Amino acid sequence: MADDGAKLPLLSSSEQAASPSKQKEKTSNKMRRFRRCKSAPAKENIIMEKNKGGLSSLVSQNILQKLHPSLRQVTLALVMYIGLGTLCFFMVRKQVSGHKTNGVIDAIYFCIVTMTTVGYGDLVPNSVATKLLACAFVFSGVALVGMILSKAADYLVEKQELLFVRAVNIRRQVGATEIAKELETNRVKYKFLMVTIALAILIVVGTVFLFEVENLNLIDSFYCVCSTITTLGYGDKSFSTEGGRIFAIFWILASTLCLAQFFLYMAELHTESRQQSLAKWVLTRQMTSVDLEAADLDDDGVVSAAEFIVFKLKEMGKISQEDITLVLEEFDGLDVDQSGTLTASDIFLAQSSPAGS
Amino acid sequence: MADDGAKLPLLSSSEQAASPSKQKEKTSNKMRRFRRCKSAPAKENIIMEKNKGGLSSLVSQNILQKLHPSLRQVTLALVMYIGLGTLCFFMVRKQVSGHKTNGVIDAIYFCIVTMTTVGYGDLVPNSVATKLLACAFVFSGVALVGMILSKAADYLVEKQELLFVRAVNIRRQVGATEIAKELETNRVKYKFLMVTIALAILIVVGTVFLFEVENLNLIDSFYCVCSTITTLGYGDKSFSTEGGRIFAIFWILASTLCLAQFFLYMAELHTESRQQSLAKWVLTRQMTSVDLEAADLDDDGVVSAAEFIVFKLKEMGKISQEDITLVLEEFDGLDVDQSGTLTASDIFLAQSSPAGS
Repeated sequence: MADDGAKLPLLSSSEQAASPSKQKEKTSNKMRRFRRCKSAPAKENIIMEKNKGGLSSLVSQNILQKLHPSLRQVTLALVMYIGLGTLCFFMVRKQVSGHKTNGVIDAIYFCIVTMTTVGYGDLVPNSVATKLLACAFVFSGVALVGMILSKAADYLVEKQELLFVRAVNIRRQVGATEIAKELETNRVKYKFLMVTIALAILIVVGTVFLFEVENLNLIDSFYCVCSTITTLGYGDKSFSTEGGRIFAIFWILASTLCLAQFFLYMAELHTESRQQSLAKWVLTRQMTSVDLEAADLDDDGVVSAAEFIVFKLKEMGKISQEDITLVLEEFDGLDVDQSGTLTASDIFLAQSSPAGS
Repeated sequence: MADDGAKLPLLSSSEQAASPSKQKEKTSNKMRRFRRCKSAPAKENIIMEKNKGGLSSLVSQNILQKLHPSLRQVTLALVMYIGLGTLCFFMVRKQVSGHKTNGVIDAIYFCIVTMTTVGYGDLVPNSVATKLLACAFVFSGVALVGMILSKAADYLVEKQELLFVRAVNIRRQVGATEIAKELETNRVKYKFLMVTIALAILIVVGTVFLFEVENLNLIDSFYCVCSTITTLGYGDKSFSTEGGRIFAIFWILASTLCLAQFFLYMAELHTESRQQSLAKWVLTRQMTSVDLEAADLDDDGVVSAAEFIVFKLKEMGKISQEDITLVLEEFDGLDVDQSGTLTASDIFLAQSSPAGS
């Protein structure tokens, strides 16, 4: 679900940094025979280039401009959603029944409780219009939360983990290169760790707050916290004071997102370890003559390094035959002299003739 | 989040089928110069092979054995979860307050309402033990629902879409080949369509049921349906009769999963269209001499087809430098005579000498 666009700025820097030392470790002179596709631009850069002049150029506030583009978009959507929701539910506040405090605070609180699908039921719509309004808000809220989860949280956690790893390594006097390498290898693990710590803090803060401010006993406080962060929201215990609801607005949003992200990373860890064991299996299994023949893409009797890469990555499921076919079609268009290889003259001919484009 | 293991059996069959006709379309004689990595096994087959003798061999019931392995695992987990939940909540039914009907039905109903995080609050735990029990159940429920979403739903939708496309194409007298090709090209779109139809049916059935059996008016019925499928569950309207709760047990589980899957596919559609536009951009942009040099992996002055594939797929973000490095290390191990290409004699030497493994 989550597109990994936000990960790439870090990835590309660590790539450049991590592999020279990797080469030294094991295959020092052998590896030099092969160049690396250095100039291939990172995916994120291309996307950002293409998005320039879109929404981002319209926003000129100072705070927003400092944020990552995808984070900016999400923040804007969130502010608009809560703003519109508060306005609507404030206007129809007479048609909402239940335990009420301040009109504006209740409207924001109701908006957050609905959007995150906690739905305590301590405030419920009691007219046809408000019921349909709540239906519309919960659907768009779920879509918005999904968007936030996939985009922004990933970015925030990455910033956190960089600070975290830096703090851990500061005494060991290791350079930025080593930190980047460390991050690259254990990316998902660090993310998972960061989100677990954040979740633990949010649970403790929520429990203490409910105990102190809402005068619940410790068990009830913890029960209400669990019921809230999982978006269960039975509603027998909820935030009933004005101060409690102000706290709840921020705390519910943060903790429900945090728990969802926690489960997301847990799934990612599982997927990653499965992929790693598959990659290991593919790489270490014995090559047969049938494999050799299949890997020989240009049918010249030998398997080059690049052919080996394509074969093995296809076996690992990282690339599909469809990807390969698509690129090969483009290759054939560029290979004007049909030699089976591309040279500078092929490129020149292909791009100067109208048939080659 | 979702690992696409379940998609592969269909993928590999359609691959074989789809590309011969694609070749004819455009680059008929040119394409024959390149072989396809036909013998690379589909990822799913490898995983299934490895999993044999695990959990699956323990289960010997007839119905379960007919199911896909991942679906079987999820069904088993779900049955165990609901079974254990029902037992627990039936035993502590005196410590649950609210509107009650039949003891067993209420226990299953409470279990489902908790697991899906709907949490109406029409039944709430009122002792310390039941509160903590509910906390434990909602956390494991959320994890389980996540597991179901990523594994089983995908498989079910795929079976449905195959039937659907077959039904649509039956009059046009097209063969299985064409159907597979059609499916492959619009895979996510069909999935999205199927899940939208299922969701619409579930919403209508739920609304009619609440209107007829629970005696709510039409607006309240629809409001309760929306509040349930989004897992909001304010609880002002819920299932209060014995018959209603029996229906709710199945309907809540199906509809909440269906809505979550709906949003998942919507995100996938978005990601896919972004990836396609990126791939198009990468493929159609002009190659420069710098690109040529970067793509030339073995540094022989020309770019072979396989080198071109590796370069372009890296540019599209489909493969990373890490993947390439890993496979190259293995290649160097196999290339005993250090010629830069693999031959049958390399493989024989590498696999017979202990250093080559």
